[in-house]
Amino acid sequence: MHTYQHEVKYYECDRMGITHHSNYVRFMEEARVDLLDHLGYGFDRVEAEGVVSPVISIQCNYKHPTTFKDVIDIDVWISKLSDLKFDFSYEMRVGGKIVCTATSTHCFTENNRPVVIAKRLPKLYQAISQE
Amino acid sequence: MHTYQHEVKYYECDRMGITHHSNYVRFMEEARVDLLDHLGYGFDRVEAEGVVSPVISIQCNYKHPTTFKDVIDIDVWISKLSDLKFDFSYEMRVGGKIVCTATSTHCFTENNRPVVIAKRLPKLYQAISQE
Amino acid sequence: MHTYQHEVKYYECDRMGITHHSNYVRFMEEARVDLLDHLGYGFDRVEAEGVVSPVISIQCNYKHPTTFKDVIDIDVWISKLSDLKFDFSYEMRVGGKIVCTATSTHCFTENNRPVVIAKRLPKLYQAISQE
Amino acid sequence: MHTYQHEVKYYECDRMGITHHSNYVRFMEEARVDLLDHLGYGFDRVEAEGVVSPVISIQCNYKHPTTFKDVIDIDVWISKLSDLKFDFSYEMRVGGKIVCTATSTHCFTENNRPVVIAKRLPKLYQAISQE
Repeated sequence: MHTYQHEVKYYECDRMGITHHSNYVRFMEEARVDLLDHLGYGFDRVEAEGVVSPVISIQCNYKHPTTFKDVIDIDVWISKLSDLKFDFSYEMRVGGKIVCTATSTHCFTENNRPVVIAKRLPKLYQAISQE
Repeated sequence: MHTYQHEVKYYECDRMGITHHSNYVRFMEEARVDLLDHLGYGFDRVEAEGVVSPVISIQCNYKHPTTFKDVIDIDVWISKLSDLKFDFSYEMRVGGKIVCTATSTHCFTENNRPVVIAKRLPKLYQAISQE
Repeated sequence: MHTYQHEVKYYECDRMGITHHSNYVRFMEEARVDLLDHLGYGFDRVEAEGVVSPVISIQCNYKHPTTFKDVIDIDVWISKLSDLKFDFSYEMRVGGKIVCTATSTHCFTENNRPVVIAKRLPKLYQAISQE
Repeated sequence: MHTYQHEVKYYECDRMGITHHSNYVRFMEEARVDLLDHLGYGFDRVEAEGVVSPVISIQCNYKHPTTFKDVIDIDVWISKLSDLKFDFSYEMRVGGKIVCTATSTHCFTENNRPVVIAKRLPKLYQAISQE
């Protein structure tokens, strides 16, 4: 498990004075990018191999609003791994209180076709499995 | 059911050349705002009554990428309605091909407390029920 | 001169309840993309020729705030043209009242080097000159 | 003078693979929010006094593109101060190379009318003058 922090920006808040719900999807991306970097397997390295990693689905449960200057602690971990797909799960907290839980599902593709992760990206697969 | 159109903007596309997945969450908001307007019950009218409508959860399934200048047809309808919560469902298509399906769950709150929709907003409740 | 319309979205408004000032820079892009399309010379056509068009500078003067559901009429025209650079000017109005005036300066580059527009993109140069 | 850092996010990059130019306007806001915090006079404190601070104008000069994971050092300082208005100037660098210079002009308003800064917000005026 890995923890990433995002401090809410002024421009991320909406007319209700709270963080616009679409931005949590961006915080999730920031957190998993940071986790993959931490595993030594950043987006840039993967992209340099000609492989891209589209998002297949996301789910967000908003528990409590956050606002400008809140520091969100985002726990992120790989919660599922199969031949072609993998899931990240996220728990976001402000001062210990859970504000959002989320999951995202991803695959890897090369020339628009899904790749078997363990074969095409064995080192990443190993790193992910041990997480 | 109601159909709303969003044409993908240059600034909505990412390094992969495709619409960034977080933007679909914004298209969903555009579509339900348009549906509520169509029902004669826009966000502004609801907010003017001192009621706000937070998002409780969202789920998006990305089927096919879209890109700059694609015109996305978004069907949006109310797919569930209970005392305190209601769901919108979305089907997004480009040229007839489904690119994304999604659901969002919402409630209404007044002074930070959930309201019983049928009691507090009876006209909206009626309009929604008949949808 | 060409007029483009942008209706302000909920997610484009900030904690002050008004359109966040950074979004006008995006509306400017929407308007000039639309003008170039209108001239038969869209971004996609230019990019397909291996040429990209970076923004060199922007200037925005915010006259009056706008908010959710405001329809902004954006007049856009090419206000300057030289060998290597060109300017777009913008006047944005809501219901006839000027809300923002702006200018942006651009060039075209190929393999990271500026190109002489009249030589490399003669048809676009002609179309722009006649504007 | 004050220095603030912004690391470019994946979702801030566009189809050209570079940071979309509109995002620099957001980085500018982050940097001046941080400077005002540093002066002990954050947005939240000013807003709590019933005063808001609209942006009057911005100007950005893009010198070099930046991209995903670039760490931008943003020097921000108050470059002009009059009775009703004040300017921030910005110099953004990546690894010492200037990527963008910018200026923004602001005022303070109360009930939609401009306030004389030295009278209405004397402590902030003092803090700003000494910068």
